[in-house]
This record gives sequence, C-alpha cells and structure tokens, in this order.
Amino acid sequence: MAAIEQIAANRSFGGWHRRYRHTSAVLGCDMQFAVYLPPQVEQGERLPVLYWLSGLTCTDENFMQKAGAQRLAAELGLVIVAPDTSPRGAGVPDDPDGAWDFGLGAGFYVNATQQPWAAHYRMYDYVVSELPALVEANFPVTAQRSISGHSMGGHGALVCALKNPGRYQSVSAFAPISNPSNCPWGQKALGNYLGPERDSWKAWDTCELLAQASERLPLLVDQGEDDSFLAEQLQPEALQAAAERVGHPLTLRRQPGYDHSYYFIASFIDDHLRHHARALGRPG
Amino acid sequence: MAAIEQIAANRSFGGWHRRYRHTSAVLGCDMQFAVYLPPQVEQGERLPVLYWLSGLTCTDENFMQKAGAQRLAAELGLVIVAPDTSPRGAGVPDDPDGAWDFGLGAGFYVNATQQPWAAHYRMYDYVVSELPALVEANFPVTAQRSISGHSMGGHGALVCALKNPGRYQSVSAFAPISNPSNCPWGQKALGNYLGPERDSWKAWDTCELLAQASERLPLLVDQGEDDSFLAEQLQPEALQAAAERVGHPLTLRRQPGYDHSYYFIASFIDDHLRHHARALGRPG
Repeated sequence: MAAIEQIAANRSFGGWHRRYRHTSAVLGCDMQFAVYLPPQVEQGERLPVLYWLSGLTCTDENFMQKAGAQRLAAELGLVIVAPDTSPRGAGVPDDPDGAWDFGLGAGFYVNATQQPWAAHYRMYDYVVSELPALVEANFPVTAQRSISGHSMGGHGALVCALKNPGRYQSVSAFAPISNPSNCPWGQKALGNYLGPERDSWKAWDTCELLAQASERLPLLVDQGEDDSFLAEQLQPEALQAAAERVGHPLTLRRQPGYDHSYYFIASFIDDHLRHHARALGRPG
Repeated sequence: MAAIEQIAANRSFGGWHRRYRHTSAVLGCDMQFAVYLPPQVEQGERLPVLYWLSGLTCTDENFMQKAGAQRLAAELGLVIVAPDTSPRGAGVPDDPDGAWDFGLGAGFYVNATQQPWAAHYRMYDYVVSELPALVEANFPVTAQRSISGHSMGGHGALVCALKNPGRYQSVSAFAPISNPSNCPWGQKALGNYLGPERDSWKAWDTCELLAQASERLPLLVDQGEDDSFLAEQLQPEALQAAAERVGHPLTLRRQPGYDHSYYFIASFIDDHLRHHARALGRPG
C-alpha cells in the first residue's frame, strides 16, 4: 500500500481537516490532497466520500478554506476529499508562457496523450482510480462515492461520473465548463493534452458524453448569472440542450447576481451536500 | 462626508460581500475594508453592525473568505464590517526588520504615541470612531454595534469594548491576546507604539482594563486548547483571573483539539453571531 504522510491537521467542527503528501505512480510526482473527516469517524463509523475537484489555479486548499462545507458535512457524516488540480513539482512541464489556464493548476482531469504532457498529466486516472484506492485503504470510509467540483472541476466531476456508470452515487457541479470542445479554455487544454484531432476530445466533453451515457445519474448544477465566464467558457445552455436531447435528468439552477467566486460556492454548497448525502444514504 | 469607492462585490447568501477603499484622515493613508450586507438590506431594513477585528498579518479579506459567517449573518440580519489590521501604503513605516508581528498588518488597535509610528498607527481611533462614522453614513445600518475579533483582533475587540461603555451592545473574542503587557507580541508592539514606560501600556491591556471597567458587558471567549500560541502569547488564565478579581462576567470556553486557525474560528463563529444577535435585538 502506498504511503501517505500527514503534513497538516486542524480540528474543524468536531472533526479534522488533514492534509497529506504521497507519491503518485499515475502522475509520476509527489502530490498533496486534503481530507475532511467528520466527527462520526471518531465514533468508529465508516463513512462515504465526496470528492471535490477544484478549478483553474487552485490546490487542495481553496475549497477547504473557503467553501464552508465542513459545518454540514460534520452534521451529515460526509468525508470530503479535495485533490490538487494538476501534477506538480520538478520535471512536470508547465505552459511555456506560464499562463494560468493551462499546465500547472490546470490538468483538466484528462489523460494526456501528447508530449510533453503525457508522462504526468493523467489527472483523470488519478482522480477516478489512484486517489480513491489510496483513500479507501487509509481512512475509515466505505466504497460509496460522490463527486462535485467547480468550473474546470465541475467539468471534471461531470466527466468522471458520466464515464464511469455505477462508480459514483451522485454528481453535481458549480459553474462547470460544460462543453470544453467549444470554448477557449477547453480548446487550449484539449488541443495540447490530446492533440488537434477534435474527435479525440469527445471522450472528455460533458455535452458529448451525455449522448452515450448508459447511466442517467441526475445532474445538479448551479450557475451564477453574473459569472464573468458564463457565455464564453461555461455555456450552461449547451449542457441543457445536450441533456434535453437524450432526456438526461438535469437540475440547472441559474442564480441571479452570483459570480464565479467561492462566495457563490459557499452560498449553495449546503444544497449540494444534501443532494449527495441523500444518494449516499446519510440521514439529513 | 468622506467618499468611499467600491472595489469589489460578490453576491453571498442572498446578500452582498463588498470591499471599499477610502482615505482615512485618522490614519493618514488610503484604507480598504469589507462589508457583508445581508439580504434584509434589500428589503429596506436598517440593521445593526458587528465589527470584526482580524489578527496579525491579516487584511479585510481573511475573515470574509474563511470564517463562513455569512450564512448565519444572512439569517440573523447582521451587517459585518471587517477593517484592515494596520495603516498601509507609501509613507507608512514598517518593522525595520520586516517582521510579521509588528508594523504593517500588526497595528494592535492602539493609538501610537512614539515616532515614527504616531503619525499613522492610530487603529484604535480608526476602529472605534472613524470607521463606524463612515459605515453609519454610507450604509443602511443602525447605531447598534457589536465587536469581535481573533488573536490581536480579539485583544482589540475586548479593549475597544472595555474602553467605551455603552458604545457596543456585545463583545466576544477568539483566542485573544489577553494580557499584552506580559507576552512577547504585546511587549514588542506596546513598547514600540507607546514607548518603554509600562504604565502607558495599561490603557491597552484587557487584564488591566477589566479592573476599572464601569460597564460589566459579558465577555464570550473561545480558546483552542491546541493553539500553538496559547501559553506564551494568549494567556487565557490571566484573563480569567482578572475577570474573577472584579466579578466581570466571562464565558471562557476551552475547545479541546482546536488550534489558532480559521478552521477553529469557523467551527464556533455561529455561537458568536448568535451571542451578538441577541444583544442587538435580532431574532434567532
């Protein structure tokens, strides 16, 4: 079993926020992740896990510090795991211009096929397989999993769930990049990680995956109407159209006045936690 | 009336988190502060204000991003105002060694009398007088005020309340520097801002002020038992002894396992908001 090393611990709402470092075989580098362990863990309960995927530029810390999720997670008995958003460290290539929307902090939750990215940028395999195996081996959790995320991480959550029927009990997203094949962030990332052949992008695009999904897991999506990335990058109307074409259950909530920040996420995280808790069989 | 300029706005729990810049006459520099305006404001209500004073190294942003206070503030109808922790900008002197525990980010909520600090470092007058006047002139608030804070800001909150009977309806603190005359952070700050004469420090030390307080406003204080600054800097037992000597009502809650971080503050902020809401006549 791969070793994990604790690098921080903070008591939080009767449970623990803890950060760990480990060597990722999938990503070929050391990675850090954060775990919120609610108080029921200390009473010997095994709990289900919500995986949270963050957006561009984030690390494991943003969600844990800013979303205010621990209060209700403690009440519901949900473990939350927040990975980093890309491989990191010596030898991991970055955007040649140092841009914030590609490379470090922007792994896009795909498995890269193109050089120089393919050796390290395999965040999809990391999030779907390696990290859950590590979590399930090291913490008192069940194999019940849910997944959520924000922006690039909303895209990641939807893609991970749609590509793996049966693996997640529920899925949700905040302001996801719904149709990366058709927006600048997505085209840059997919074009570099997967190459210019657009057919190869379809396996990583929620709007494409919805058409073939064999499992119709309901999607809960919140989107701020004053999000500055709304029209160009996020395109919730494409998500809505793709879901309607195949009758995929989608609850898309447009929230007037809200932007792309963690103030938006914090305002609605409780609804998402309750959505996941219901699917995971937690009371509340 | 002094002008304020909005520099950021985020919708939050049906209300608004807004940041402003203004020129402070008291501090002789431009300052930034943050305001949380709950949804009742948009229905035309005038609401009371909780002032939050942050700790060493913080700005107006830490509390608003990390404490998770907006959820319950929105429910209770409390405006929250978070100032910066020192004067800032060109011409404002800093610790000659650039230390984080004195100078910029470490105004200690006193009025400095010594050079080169006296011209700008007047955070006490700013927090007690200039900022509330600005807030009460520019926002739909009442003159009902409460005050709270963390660490250096917990010291600030207790000192502001104890020195101004009748001005605050309630006061509370997280891990306050209870007896600055007798701890390294306090001795460095008071020694520099006020000079070496220790008698001049007494007017800025909670333990000293408790002895003479003409108003016995109940103190609510939370303190993490695993706070790494507990014994050397914070000294809750000195606070407890000072309160007991004069019969000042103090609820000192020692929280096992909690540290000095915002994970600690977030875990107990709801109790403090309810404490203030009761004093301010807000339902809930």
